[in-house]
Amino acid sequence: MLKKMQTLDGNTAAAHVAYAMSDVATLYPITPSSPIGEIADEWAAMGRKNIFGQTLTIRQLQSEAGAAGAVHGSLAAGALTTTFTASQGLLLMIPNMYKMAGELLPAVLHVTARAIAAHALSIFGDHQDVMAVRQTGFAMLASASIQEVMDLGLVAHLAAIESSVPFIHFFDGFRTSHEIQKIEIIEYEDMAKLVNWDAVEKFRKRGANPERPELRGSAQNPDIYFQGREAANSYYMKVPEIVSSYMKKVGELTGRKYKLFDYVGHPKAERIVISMGSSCETVEEYINYALAKGERIGAVKVRLYRPFSAESLLSVIPASVKRVTVLDRTKEPGPGGPLYTDVSTAFVEQGGRMGENPLVINGRYGLGSKEFNPGMIKAVFDNMNVVIPKNHFTIGIEDDVTHTSLSWDNLMGVAPGDAIRCKFWGLGSDGTVGANKTAIKIIGNNTPKYVQGYFAYDSKKSGGITISHLRFGNAPIQSAYQIFSPEYIACHNPSYIHLYDILEGIKPGASFVLNSPWTLEEMEEEIPCAMRRTIAEKKLKFYNVNAVKIASEVGLEGRISMIMQTAFFKISGIIPIDDAVKYLKEEIKKMFGKKGEAVVQMNLDAVDKTLDSIVEVDYPEAWADAVVLPEPELDDPEFIKKVLRPIVAQKGDSLPVSAFPPDGIFPVGTTKYEKRGVAINVPMWIPENCIQCNQCS
Amino acid sequence: MLKKMQTLDGNTAAAHVAYAMSDVATLYPITPSSPIGEIADEWAAMGRKNIFGQTLTIRQLQSEAGAAGAVHGSLAAGALTTTFTASQGLLLMIPNMYKMAGELLPAVLHVTARAIAAHALSIFGDHQDVMAVRQTGFAMLASASIQEVMDLGLVAHLAAIESSVPFIHFFDGFRTSHEIQKIEIIEYEDMAKLVNWDAVEKFRKRGANPERPELRGSAQNPDIYFQGREAANSYYMKVPEIVSSYMKKVGELTGRKYKLFDYVGHPKAERIVISMGSSCETVEEYINYALAKGERIGAVKVRLYRPFSAESLLSVIPASVKRVTVLDRTKEPGPGGPLYTDVSTAFVEQGGRMGENPLVINGRYGLGSKEFNPGMIKAVFDNMNVVIPKNHFTIGIEDDVTHTSLSWDNLMGVAPGDAIRCKFWGLGSDGTVGANKTAIKIIGNNTPKYVQGYFAYDSKKSGGITISHLRFGNAPIQSAYQIFSPEYIACHNPSYIHLYDILEGIKPGASFVLNSPWTLEEMEEEIPCAMRRTIAEKKLKFYNVNAVKIASEVGLEGRISMIMQTAFFKISGIIPIDDAVKYLKEEIKKMFGKKGEAVVQMNLDAVDKTLDSIVEVDYPEAWADAVVLPEPELDDPEFIKKVLRPIVAQKGDSLPVSAFPPDGIFPVGTTKYEKRGVAINVPMWIPENCIQCNQCS
Repeated sequence: MLKKMQTLDGNTAAAHVAYAMSDVATLYPITPSSPIGEIADEWAAMGRKNIFGQTLTIRQLQSEAGAAGAVHGSLAAGALTTTFTASQGLLLMIPNMYKMAGELLPAVLHVTARAIAAHALSIFGDHQDVMAVRQTGFAMLASASIQEVMDLGLVAHLAAIESSVPFIHFFDGFRTSHEIQKIEIIEYEDMAKLVNWDAVEKFRKRGANPERPELRGSAQNPDIYFQGREAANSYYMKVPEIVSSYMKKVGELTGRKYKLFDYVGHPKAERIVISMGSSCETVEEYINYALAKGERIGAVKVRLYRPFSAESLLSVIPASVKRVTVLDRTKEPGPGGPLYTDVSTAFVEQGGRMGENPLVINGRYGLGSKEFNPGMIKAVFDNMNVVIPKNHFTIGIEDDVTHTSLSWDNLMGVAPGDAIRCKFWGLGSDGTVGANKTAIKIIGNNTPKYVQGYFAYDSKKSGGITISHLRFGNAPIQSAYQIFSPEYIACHNPSYIHLYDILEGIKPGASFVLNSPWTLEEMEEEIPCAMRRTIAEKKLKFYNVNAVKIASEVGLEGRISMIMQTAFFKISGIIPIDDAVKYLKEEIKKMFGKKGEAVVQMNLDAVDKTLDSIVEVDYPEAWADAVVLPEPELDDPEFIKKVLRPIVAQKGDSLPVSAFPPDGIFPVGTTKYEKRGVAINVPMWIPENCIQCNQCS
Repeated sequence: MLKKMQTLDGNTAAAHVAYAMSDVATLYPITPSSPIGEIADEWAAMGRKNIFGQTLTIRQLQSEAGAAGAVHGSLAAGALTTTFTASQGLLLMIPNMYKMAGELLPAVLHVTARAIAAHALSIFGDHQDVMAVRQTGFAMLASASIQEVMDLGLVAHLAAIESSVPFIHFFDGFRTSHEIQKIEIIEYEDMAKLVNWDAVEKFRKRGANPERPELRGSAQNPDIYFQGREAANSYYMKVPEIVSSYMKKVGELTGRKYKLFDYVGHPKAERIVISMGSSCETVEEYINYALAKGERIGAVKVRLYRPFSAESLLSVIPASVKRVTVLDRTKEPGPGGPLYTDVSTAFVEQGGRMGENPLVINGRYGLGSKEFNPGMIKAVFDNMNVVIPKNHFTIGIEDDVTHTSLSWDNLMGVAPGDAIRCKFWGLGSDGTVGANKTAIKIIGNNTPKYVQGYFAYDSKKSGGITISHLRFGNAPIQSAYQIFSPEYIACHNPSYIHLYDILEGIKPGASFVLNSPWTLEEMEEEIPCAMRRTIAEKKLKFYNVNAVKIASEVGLEGRISMIMQTAFFKISGIIPIDDAVKYLKEEIKKMFGKKGEAVVQMNLDAVDKTLDSIVEVDYPEAWADAVVLPEPELDDPEFIKKVLRPIVAQKGDSLPVSAFPPDGIFPVGTTKYEKRGVAINVPMWIPENCIQCNQCS
């Protein structure tokens, strides 16, 4: 089979599979799963056919409760049905989920696993939502990367059909749902070959039909309910085997092998980590690094979380293992995280003397998309080297109140060396993220390079801050964390240099591209001493682009993203600039074609003009001696000083637990301390012209 | 303190506490919790005062989701708020529960734990609903009996106030919510003395107030959400201690001592059971019986299930224990039931060599109010005697498909000998249940006897079948299961003798009271051979009351309950008949006073007339030789023969798992096989009078 590679995000990969394998999708959008539904809706509008040769039937409901009810009803009528959700949306589906499972209806829910609003709302990723439905009777299959979303998403559909058990296929919200990677696409005709068509036929025949009426949803008394509840046992008992067999079949098709639990690492490891979701990728990356240094460590990636096959888990853990850390990406008031209690139970059932069983400990990480990087993983493994390891620890935060946290090195790099890391500071809706996505796709689709893009949004969205993290390399990229040591940094808004530590972690000799209107002389005034010092000390290649001016000149008033993208291709040199320009211009014609010739031309002009206008700044060596004066102490209220200012400066990660109220209540009236001055142009009030339209504000 | 005893059900006990300790209750009724709200509403209408000297503010919402939202809002405004729910109702509260917990708002939810609709709906009791919310951040406290609902319900409120952590206080639906017992009431002035008034004051001051605005429910980014989520740890860490201290205080007040986990049994037990809810009562009853026979067994009653204090659990388990069976009243596709994985984890954390840790096994019981009786408990303990005990077993059903079940003896009696057991077969809405409740209260409130009433309803309710189970004894009654070996059986509908095995399990020499119009000669014709044979073989005292005739004579047309109640007092002799008649007549005046003198008089007449009309049937010894002919084989469809007929005959408990479809789908058109002929009078169609009103049908 010829491999078809494509550069896309996790949501698109999920949509690709869900569209293929379903008759019906019911939707109610919720972040971060909304794009799956939007993409499927768009494809249906374009008449794309699923493996059954039909266009997917799509219905939007009035809440996730309605979407779940419609999934239930649609399945009962004999249509293979899917939906896409997360967080509170998934919680609203719970009552219907019990019904679908109880009635053995093969729903597949694709879930972009997300935090649940507790002390505060979070739209970001963790496993609180999926863990809140682990008791419903749904099987649960976890994907750790975009490629797995494609592969295991398909397994979920295939296994649901054959087992008659409904599935949740989940992957980490934002980290996997919105991350872009170059992956191999599975074609619909190949999917169709794997389907158990007898099971499809049987399922359709079970559909409710007035020709042969039957009673569904009866009310049962104590005499028979329990027996009825146990009558489905054999269906659940078969699930692990069915999932396993489809993993094998997908593996035969693609060459990518999966097991219910996958072990990676040293065959005689003494310390291992067990986790689920995107953390598995980073853990594997760390392990490969550590193995090369001679460490005997390993990890288990959990794929099929429900039904939980203790036997399968135990079968992949080397007998040499002495210590196990189970990482949970959720928080519960139980005796530990749910994955931890499950793994502990598996060891208890293994029996034998405890001396033969490893010591099992539990850690909590990554709530609300908190970073989980190699330094943290090292801390987790190091903790297992201590005589009495810390149990029920947290990693990724400083808990100075109940002292659960491990400390770690935030700057530990373990990724294979050939990848180039680029970081872009943009303004929400300024086009930076879109341009970066185009850049990744150009490189991904036109070269053999592997690419990865992750976009850290402010939840303020438009007008907020966006930080794009792009990696380009010759091997698959497993770094499921933000870039902390970039070879390339671009700052798309000159006001940011006063607000943020733009150059944090930049590598010596790396490239720094600034969009500013400044001459070198003005830079001496405008650029803060600390930044000038870093530029000179780290001997950065410092480029300036007056993108606002170029945009204005070609007629794109304020739209700087094409300009900064051109600068990126020129300066980064990831692909030859002539090729890049060619691809970029092709892309421009595709993207802006429908907006008319004029817009296309403006963008083409912007590209050409940029190539001529990039200035490498010949800064004086003396910048290295710039004296960094301490920041003047502001007379701010305590909360502003200790909490708000660091958050606004993008230093919120460093705030310890003690900075936060235990009930999530914040003071009001803090916006006034948050003025950033990020507007490109500031309107001037001309009283005699004022018609009080208030648009200037 | 003078003990004030009262005879009431679990819902009333919960209402008593919840009313006292709350400012606001939001309601949306769901079986079996509805009466709690109804009672509280009635009390509020009557102006009853809570411990704060106010009338409880009650609001009915439009769904349980609304009720939960209103609880959240009301708490945020500084009002101590409660609600009452179960099953799907509780599921709809989940999103708001995370918010309440996250914001440290001391809600108390009283939950009548109930099954969740899966393959079929069940309105009956188990722990599926409460287990579906164990991850929300609510503390969870379980009561096993009506007395505990009073005592631990109060602890839940007291601990919520002091800890700022919200609580679920739960008890088994129907078994505890609807069971009637004589218990000690805690007076409101005594409750008030236990309250931490500083904490109340602090809570009220935290209430939202426009005078000091603050930001609640912010949206947090990955930088700070995790820290905020951990900021409440210390509150949760204190919960076990706080609950423990209030258990102690309530114990000092009442003399009833509770711990987070209570151990009962042999101090050097080798085999123990760990369970939660009403099963604890039956288990304790069994253990007392077995200890007397020299067995070394014990049990742990789980009170505080969340936060789960592994330390407290382990501290009560004797070091001698070699085998532990954890009983879960729920079903999940995890590595076992949730209580089992929690207990297993506790043992893993205890560490040491596995040889020192007991073998832990898991059983599932009681789904949808499936009986859990002493014979089943014996089977559970016996299973621990086998070299390799069956794990993940079910008890209470015959699983002939996946062979999970243990077998047991349904007729094993272990209750202390002095209790009298009475069973009443009634027709839904014929007044039998109400009359039995009155009878229990008369005996409970006017004598030192302990009483228990449990009413097994058909979910058909009006017109269905009701079986009342009444126990009277000199010690507290822990038999949380139906009566299988009664000293007294009453059949309130003569048609039942053809439909049901009315005398099943009756003790030799026991009393059997039939409501029928038959003479002895007619009985030879009407009463089935098998029943006549049992009457004679077991030498029953067989009484007949022509209740329909008496009712008709005194003007109560068809209302036979007062008559059968009088017969009960006369025949059972539990209290002297003169006293009984006095109490009964007082009760009649109270009950029917508002319906007018005439109704009162009719009922008084009914009592007197009954006393004169009870006939002890002088049946011939030859009944013992009545030949029981095999039932004629009916030409019914398979499903009717194998499933419906046994269910209709009240033999559904004996149906094995294989009788049921795994997806809960039943055939239609089965009602026609269910005709019971239970009407007292059958209307005759007089064509010339017919106005086609259709009421005759």
